[in-house]
Amino acid sequence: MKIALVDDVVLPQGFRAAGIASGIKRSGKRDLMLVVSDRPATCAGVFTTNQVQAAPVKLDREVVKNQSARAIVVNSGNANACTGASGLRDAKAMQAQAAKLLKVKAGEVLVCSTGAIGKPMPMNTIRAGIQQIVPALSADGGPDAALAIMTTDTRKKTATVRLAVDGKPVTLTAFAKGAGMIEPNMATMLGFFFTDAAVEPRALQHALKQAVDASFNRVSVDGDMSTNDTCLFLANGAAGNKPLTPKHKDWPAFTAALFVIALDLATKIAADGEGATKLVTVRVEGARSDAEADAAARAVANSMLVKTCWNGDYPNWGRIMDAIGYSAARVDESKVDIFYDARHAVRRGLATRTSIAALSAVQKQKQFTIRIDLHLGKGQAEVYTCDCSEEYVRINVDYIKMPDGREPT
Amino acid sequence: MKIALVDDVVLPQGFRAAGIASGIKRSGKRDLMLVVSDRPATCAGVFTTNQVQAAPVKLDREVVKNQSARAIVVNSGNANACTGASGLRDAKAMQAQAAKLLKVKAGEVLVCSTGAIGKPMPMNTIRAGIQQIVPALSADGGPDAALAIMTTDTRKKTATVRLAVDGKPVTLTAFAKGAGMIEPNMATMLGFFFTDAAVEPRALQHALKQAVDASFNRVSVDGDMSTNDTCLFLANGAAGNKPLTPKHKDWPAFTAALFVIALDLATKIAADGEGATKLVTVRVEGARSDAEADAAARAVANSMLVKTCWNGDYPNWGRIMDAIGYSAARVDESKVDIFYDARHAVRRGLATRTSIAALSAVQKQKQFTIRIDLHLGKGQAEVYTCDCSEEYVRINVDYIKMPDGREPT
Repeated sequence: MKIALVDDVVLPQGFRAAGIASGIKRSGKRDLMLVVSDRPATCAGVFTTNQVQAAPVKLDREVVKNQSARAIVVNSGNANACTGASGLRDAKAMQAQAAKLLKVKAGEVLVCSTGAIGKPMPMNTIRAGIQQIVPALSADGGPDAALAIMTTDTRKKTATVRLAVDGKPVTLTAFAKGAGMIEPNMATMLGFFFTDAAVEPRALQHALKQAVDASFNRVSVDGDMSTNDTCLFLANGAAGNKPLTPKHKDWPAFTAALFVIALDLATKIAADGEGATKLVTVRVEGARSDAEADAAARAVANSMLVKTCWNGDYPNWGRIMDAIGYSAARVDESKVDIFYDARHAVRRGLATRTSIAALSAVQKQKQFTIRIDLHLGKGQAEVYTCDCSEEYVRINVDYIKMPDGREPT
Repeated sequence: MKIALVDDVVLPQGFRAAGIASGIKRSGKRDLMLVVSDRPATCAGVFTTNQVQAAPVKLDREVVKNQSARAIVVNSGNANACTGASGLRDAKAMQAQAAKLLKVKAGEVLVCSTGAIGKPMPMNTIRAGIQQIVPALSADGGPDAALAIMTTDTRKKTATVRLAVDGKPVTLTAFAKGAGMIEPNMATMLGFFFTDAAVEPRALQHALKQAVDASFNRVSVDGDMSTNDTCLFLANGAAGNKPLTPKHKDWPAFTAALFVIALDLATKIAADGEGATKLVTVRVEGARSDAEADAAARAVANSMLVKTCWNGDYPNWGRIMDAIGYSAARVDESKVDIFYDARHAVRRGLATRTSIAALSAVQKQKQFTIRIDLHLGKGQAEVYTCDCSEEYVRINVDYIKMPDGREPT
């Protein structure tokens, strides 16, 4: 099955959106977004596993329990994390104000925040912004909404797929943000999914969880996991199909489309990692179990020595050997094979005769795959990551005085 | 008890050493060292836990089983790791050649290598070097030996303590190398300890293990653990004391001196982390257990976002909250206190009224302590680490063409 992706936000029937510059970001860039469904939508959510959780994360967990929502309001420029009782009050105030203006119940509004941790929310600015954004809602507002959630992102991450369910045209669209502090379990990552298909609530939650596990949770930029990660999915049924469940004949097509969109956004996040110049897929095969393959792949993807090496031209596979060696995966050095794309770099733990120039040619590409075969079993896993450049450090050291308007994460 | 440290290698009685430039390093810097005891010395060793282990590590594990050795020969500029059977042959050749020239048994010679992984050893150069270094041995050769084991280190790390055992003067001296790829469990770290005290073999091994656990294994530069880490300890008994055991009245003084030396070298390694400008102690208290305190401290010390933040002036404690939140330690956000030296930054999970300027003044120092109290129990741990600068990335991206003679790790 081939699924045609459009790199844009095309809102499904019954959704409107907007993204505006409300003044939270000193840069004057867009920093507030709102997406609204004109009818109650089934909703699902997946959240950070960090023990320190931002106020809106706490709020949204409650909304998602009701399995129904009408709107999502998001600010960038402030994470509303480590803000205690006043932070929770502020998140609830955002929820209540949006609900009142949209004439829906407060419990039908989801709230997200992304930006720096531990700063009080600029509520006067945000209140004025919410007042201003409601009249700006439109069926074409998706791209602006996608812009308004960005922090250190250099590009917006969007994807749309169209498919048929019960013979009716259905749209599935999504956008995400994330550039630094990205690790397994959805670090400083926000992802929003919208469809006009009707989906049964438990099926929607199940599908979202599976798609996130196979995509966003397989991305690693710097090994840090944030306090704010959230993926939300609204399905408003405007397409008029029979509600999707795993037993529906079009369920496989729907979940495949969802997976393709999620993976597309996840790799866009990895490729836009702070300071990243290369998108690297680390694939481990032949581990004793999938869990061990995952541990080995993450050890490689999170190794600063490996990531800095990728930033240059020299293919130092010794650092990859080193990283799998200290991972939680069982490794027998004398059985390890490593490939740079199709180039065989290491055979049974030793350098092959492939030239440094040939391996370097692979590593110089914008995108390549490191495949590691441990030859100990059938476990396999894939992680999407990027190189680490001086620019990554610069962004994270100097962000407080960054002149180009990028906001702290 | 106050222990006077001398920042140099002062060889104990009966030891001779040398460090020469044999031509392994293209820079022409010292790259081969030899330390010899004029009589059989009790020996102990602690090694990397990486599953991928360099050839000399495999060799030394066997020597240490005999509990007696006469010499240590070390090259820098090549790790002799991921070199398979030929690597082991090369390590054995270094051992045999040194033994023959020193007129001792091969099984009495320890071998270490440090440098890039996966490259064949330049054995012609090394053979000529060993031939040349034996006549260079002298009682004053300690400092040269300490220089010869350096790779990306910018300074040599040395420490000497004098104490009395059974009323006899005893010298304890040590030197170490390590700058990148440093993590718990002794990553790309070499440490050599020498004393003229007589020490019972099992006691020596026990004392070394304890000292390493409390020092080198508490240092983290970049979270990577190497294939070559080795700490060796030779005690030749030339001082004429009654052999030290835990029951000896001077055992506490001896182990305290050993601990002080090891900790001194460990903090010198952290302070000389690749590109490091600051030495940071991360102290966690109030965890449910020491193990959880350790997990939280390491999460902070290894977080790229925290380390890059320390490189600048802005005290972003939110990143510290984030890191403990995803650590394996139980954390209750509403109970966490964080201090920058004596400055109270976070109380019960929220910003205190301490000014940003006051916290920034702490973070601007060359050396400071982040103290985190989880208020959940009595567990505590300390980790020594450093900031991460653009220079760290530059060193690890560009080392292959570094003009100043520093060698790859």
